[in-house]
Amino acid sequence: MPLVQINNLWAEVPEDNRVEYFKRLDNAHAQELFMMLDASERASLLRGLDLLDRRLWMRLLDPDDAADVIQEVPTEERPDLINLLDHTFKNHLNALLAYAEDVAGGLMSPRYARVRPDMRVAEAIRYVHKQALDNVETMYYVYVLGTEQELLGMLSFRELFTAAPGEIVSNVMNTNLITARENMDQEELGHLFAQHDLLAIPVVDNANHMKGIVTIDDIVDVVEEEATEDIQKLGGMEALDAPYFQIGLVQMVRKRAGWLTILFVGEMLTASAMAYYQDEIASAVVLALFLPLIISSGGNAGSQASTLVIRAMALGEVRPKDWWRIARRELLIGFLLGLILAIIGLMRVLLWQHAFQAYGPHYLLIGLTVFLSLIGVVLWGTISGALLPMLLRRAGFDPATASTPFVATMVDVTGLIIYFNIALLVLHGTLLK
Amino acid sequence: MPLVQINNLWAEVPEDNRVEYFKRLDNAHAQELFMMLDASERASLLRGLDLLDRRLWMRLLDPDDAADVIQEVPTEERPDLINLLDHTFKNHLNALLAYAEDVAGGLMSPRYARVRPDMRVAEAIRYVHKQALDNVETMYYVYVLGTEQELLGMLSFRELFTAAPGEIVSNVMNTNLITARENMDQEELGHLFAQHDLLAIPVVDNANHMKGIVTIDDIVDVVEEEATEDIQKLGGMEALDAPYFQIGLVQMVRKRAGWLTILFVGEMLTASAMAYYQDEIASAVVLALFLPLIISSGGNAGSQASTLVIRAMALGEVRPKDWWRIARRELLIGFLLGLILAIIGLMRVLLWQHAFQAYGPHYLLIGLTVFLSLIGVVLWGTISGALLPMLLRRAGFDPATASTPFVATMVDVTGLIIYFNIALLVLHGTLLK
Repeated sequence: MPLVQINNLWAEVPEDNRVEYFKRLDNAHAQELFMMLDASERASLLRGLDLLDRRLWMRLLDPDDAADVIQEVPTEERPDLINLLDHTFKNHLNALLAYAEDVAGGLMSPRYARVRPDMRVAEAIRYVHKQALDNVETMYYVYVLGTEQELLGMLSFRELFTAAPGEIVSNVMNTNLITARENMDQEELGHLFAQHDLLAIPVVDNANHMKGIVTIDDIVDVVEEEATEDIQKLGGMEALDAPYFQIGLVQMVRKRAGWLTILFVGEMLTASAMAYYQDEIASAVVLALFLPLIISSGGNAGSQASTLVIRAMALGEVRPKDWWRIARRELLIGFLLGLILAIIGLMRVLLWQHAFQAYGPHYLLIGLTVFLSLIGVVLWGTISGALLPMLLRRAGFDPATASTPFVATMVDVTGLIIYFNIALLVLHGTLLK
Repeated sequence: MPLVQINNLWAEVPEDNRVEYFKRLDNAHAQELFMMLDASERASLLRGLDLLDRRLWMRLLDPDDAADVIQEVPTEERPDLINLLDHTFKNHLNALLAYAEDVAGGLMSPRYARVRPDMRVAEAIRYVHKQALDNVETMYYVYVLGTEQELLGMLSFRELFTAAPGEIVSNVMNTNLITARENMDQEELGHLFAQHDLLAIPVVDNANHMKGIVTIDDIVDVVEEEATEDIQKLGGMEALDAPYFQIGLVQMVRKRAGWLTILFVGEMLTASAMAYYQDEIASAVVLALFLPLIISSGGNAGSQASTLVIRAMALGEVRPKDWWRIARRELLIGFLLGLILAIIGLMRVLLWQHAFQAYGPHYLLIGLTVFLSLIGVVLWGTISGALLPMLLRRAGFDPATASTPFVATMVDVTGLIIYFNIALLVLHGTLLK
């Protein structure tokens, strides 16, 4: 049975029957399936198996993957699981468990190929061969370490393989290395991989001692996961952390209701603000007609700006210290965008007046109110949408909190105040007292 | 000078001086820099160099990267650039150029290590060694091809390296392979890599003939790029295709003004709809007070639902045929979310009435209007936000077109109609005629 088919069947097995289904597979298929599961699926499967089977499957995993599984298991069950492993493995694992799951230290594998700088190439190849037999996970790079485990250089396996056999390793190794610190965030690691087209990045401590390597196959998932989290936060909810259909109804409502309620309470300020302008609305109902149009334009412009800045920050294209450059730029862009919408808005008032006499004798003043409000509100929406994510980062929050609905809500309230104040100014003595 | 430093300096060199700056670098640094640039930067750099330099740098690139560069150059200049290359390279390149840039065929490299099924392991290692000297790009997998170039199996280099030297290749190779078709979209390829933790995926045609391999280092960028595009579209604008600060002002305004104008024109329908209810607003100004609160709640709920579904579709978790399952689920979720907001909204009316006598003698009916409208609008926003992306995909559009602002605008107009009709029903005979 080919891999893809097992995977599809598995997805259709009800959660409660998965352990039974797994037990009934022959070893070859079970292995293929197990290697394809993610850490949380592996953890729940293992918890349903008996002790001997658990050991078998845990030992099959590379230390970094095993560490992920253990982090998915309730704290009190972890020691039992760790004790199933042999001594060396346990040491590796404990080292990994000391790091958070989402930093380089927590993603790295201690199984890399290493050689000494003073070896000849032929000797180094034999040495790597021995390590390959000994279950070294990744062989595409060979790391050259000094006596103190300090990282001196690196060769791709191909470079080692094709170098003259009598050459000294330190003469053929590359010394210009991209490395990561143990506490480097996985998102940043993702950019490092994307930027330098590397297959593995060595992790070193302050004193350049080699701690392990992070391999690119563990990072593709990360890049995808981080983007999913950001997208969901930008949509105005908590990140789901699991595929859509795997989230229960209650949890789904909880993940969405929180932000929805916060936004709702924030948006209540519009009701208060409008109550304040109640008399103006009563004497010029026409003001209410344009209200949704004007405040939503500010929200849309703000959504664009915040989305752009949040993504640019996530990709490292924009840093908090660039705020002034961004502010200047978005000021101009916001003004131009506002002007475009203002012209269309004004034309709409003039056209409707011409066609239906919709706005009475003061239509020009109404048009002017709409025109000026659109410039003001779009400009304000753009600037606040662009700067809010940077403020949030500065205050220690995730910039993606400045979601599209969040910015829209904020700009609704302030946009409403801008609109009514411009109306008071322009319509004073005509439609308004 | 370390790599990171060159990269930072390069970013600060003005666009016009980059060719000069590049020419002044020594060969080692120039090479490091050149390998780090993306295709469009390489193309504009090459166009500034003279013929001999161009050849030098083009030949340094792997065929898939060279093909990308050529696609960045105006059509009329392409033959000149292609003619700089040697015969074999040219053939590879022309094969690659036959594919779109964003499918497997356009991303693949023809430089992979291959062996015959009937070779002994020792012989296969020697054969791969020869290919490694001969500039095979990626050595972590060795592919086993039949006489017709059909793909029979695969070994990781480590497996080959550690197998018994006298063993026949076909006895030690893996035959259960993940492959891609030439026209597989890069986004789908990204999921395949993420799901199976592979470093390279072989590309085959209908008859299982090997065409090349796609390597994971080319895919990390892709996964990141695709997510960026989706995020920008979800924010209600065209995808930028370049880092924030690299987009000129005029282009930035153009990318944003298009959608902003479409949304603005759509939102104009609210002004028309409200003009229709003008008399109701005049006789019950209180209705206007709650308008932004109610319609924006529908927009927020819709944003959540559309964001969720769009991302789940992009990740392949949800397919168009699941629409009925999603509709049922979101119907229930939308109702629950609406109920939560409706209760808070009702409490707000009762509280304000109690504290300020804000809503006069009919406050209970006003509260009921707010209560029912919130359920209706949030339910409607959720359902339409969830189903719109699927409808768009069905109609051949990108689901990410159902951006947060797009859904919000759509729900604003319809939410307004729901609100006023519930008001007419509930307040008939009291506040309204």
